[in-house]
Amino acid sequence: MTGFGLERLSLNQATVKYLGLADTVALCVRHDIPAIGLWRDRVAEVGLASAVASVRRAGLHVSSLCRGGFFTSVASGDADGREAVRADNLAAVREAAALEADALILVCGGLVPGSRDLGLARRMVADAIGELVPVAQRLGVRLGIEALHPMFCADRCVVASLGEAVDLAFLFPAEAVGVVVDTYHVWWDARLFAEIARAAGRVVSYQVCDWVVPLPADVLLGRGHLGDGVIDFGPISDAVAAAGYQGYVEVEIFNADVWSAPPDETAATVRNRFAATLAH
Amino acid sequence: MTGFGLERLSLNQATVKYLGLADTVALCVRHDIPAIGLWRDRVAEVGLASAVASVRRAGLHVSSLCRGGFFTSVASGDADGREAVRADNLAAVREAAALEADALILVCGGLVPGSRDLGLARRMVADAIGELVPVAQRLGVRLGIEALHPMFCADRCVVASLGEAVDLAFLFPAEAVGVVVDTYHVWWDARLFAEIARAAGRVVSYQVCDWVVPLPADVLLGRGHLGDGVIDFGPISDAVAAAGYQGYVEVEIFNADVWSAPPDETAATVRNRFAATLAH
Repeated sequence: MTGFGLERLSLNQATVKYLGLADTVALCVRHDIPAIGLWRDRVAEVGLASAVASVRRAGLHVSSLCRGGFFTSVASGDADGREAVRADNLAAVREAAALEADALILVCGGLVPGSRDLGLARRMVADAIGELVPVAQRLGVRLGIEALHPMFCADRCVVASLGEAVDLAFLFPAEAVGVVVDTYHVWWDARLFAEIARAAGRVVSYQVCDWVVPLPADVLLGRGHLGDGVIDFGPISDAVAAAGYQGYVEVEIFNADVWSAPPDETAATVRNRFAATLAH
Repeated sequence: MTGFGLERLSLNQATVKYLGLADTVALCVRHDIPAIGLWRDRVAEVGLASAVASVRRAGLHVSSLCRGGFFTSVASGDADGREAVRADNLAAVREAAALEADALILVCGGLVPGSRDLGLARRMVADAIGELVPVAQRLGVRLGIEALHPMFCADRCVVASLGEAVDLAFLFPAEAVGVVVDTYHVWWDARLFAEIARAAGRVVSYQVCDWVVPLPADVLLGRGHLGDGVIDFGPISDAVAAAGYQGYVEVEIFNADVWSAPPDETAATVRNRFAATLAH
């Protein structure tokens, strides 16, 4: 019950959405944040080699690369579209390898366009992950299946509970496929602690932010700084630690007010709240 | 696989939010809708005896009374508040009995004010239902535990999946406590069909409306007419029928556009969509 110290803190760059990669790296260094979660669009802006050099020079660990997935975004009959999705995911694996990221986060995609068949979408997700696994193994990348909150089931991720993510991960070797525990997406689940325990050895990323009440108009942005919402982080963190997770804890906040705050203020708040909430 | 015929249709009066009880009863009669789901505030407006007389005179069956619950809305130390919640729920059971409603719907309540303890809230819900059971048994009322969508977990209902509702119901005699299956709240769940099967003999209400993408600003109102969203009603309805449910199918739509439409138009659409979507 020692919690997570600040040496385990990682800043996901989505928390400071308007900064480019170099500025986010500098922000982490300035605030003594030892790890960073990167997004592929921000990596692409500077180029992969430059991104790798930037984080190495700063001595930052890359706790995750966001993200692969959206395996269901084109109908199964659209061969060209399917190939584009596959190529993009292979590129994501290669980028994660080059960045030595602890995990490539997979947001698996919602219903197939024009379809109401959840079972079909879920089978497509499993098949697509299966195709990525050999490449991930060869390059030493761990894929992290992220369960998104059920309110995103239709349009972003048919993997709508941690248990489902664990079931999916178990189809594949543990060194290649694990699960992401993101408090925002899973905090409500009565089976949460049982599922985290079942995921022992398979948790490849632990992301935290708070659930703010009431939800704002855009539910994608209903996340808050730790302590601003209703999530009880202590028991979840203890469960993640007990499941053998030894990696970083990424603070990832999608919130219009946080985004419009000065980044140094945001980074300081992230550190303070992390210490107050997780280092219990 | 015969589906549900129009003789099983019930109109939940929340679908025509701006009509009082008498007008909603008349609407059902005009559109040959054999059953109605009532709300307690609308019953209170006309008085219980008048409401009973109104539905009987019209020959309408009352498929549900909405709603009891909100057991967690006051802190456990607030004895007066707790007593008020208890008294209100006892009144709801008596009203359901007088109306001969097939079920009293329970929306159990969110986190206790000032608390982040989901376990505490869930224990309070179980205790409170336990207190209601003897009264429900004596009056021949079935309590229906409704799992709400996890996006309402913090502020409306800590029972956030059908499996959790089934677990709760199993603590009590089947003739007194069952579960509500509401497609809007549970459609996303990978365990849905297993949980409906596990609820055999315990489904006391089947409510339907569609999940519209994207969600509107007020997520309470993100419901649509059957067919306007992404829910595949056939398999869910088959599972509910296979679980032995023989009651009415209530159409309950919270949607600002539906509410502002002429009620006769809404009733006609409800009938047509029901026939097209559920009577497969």
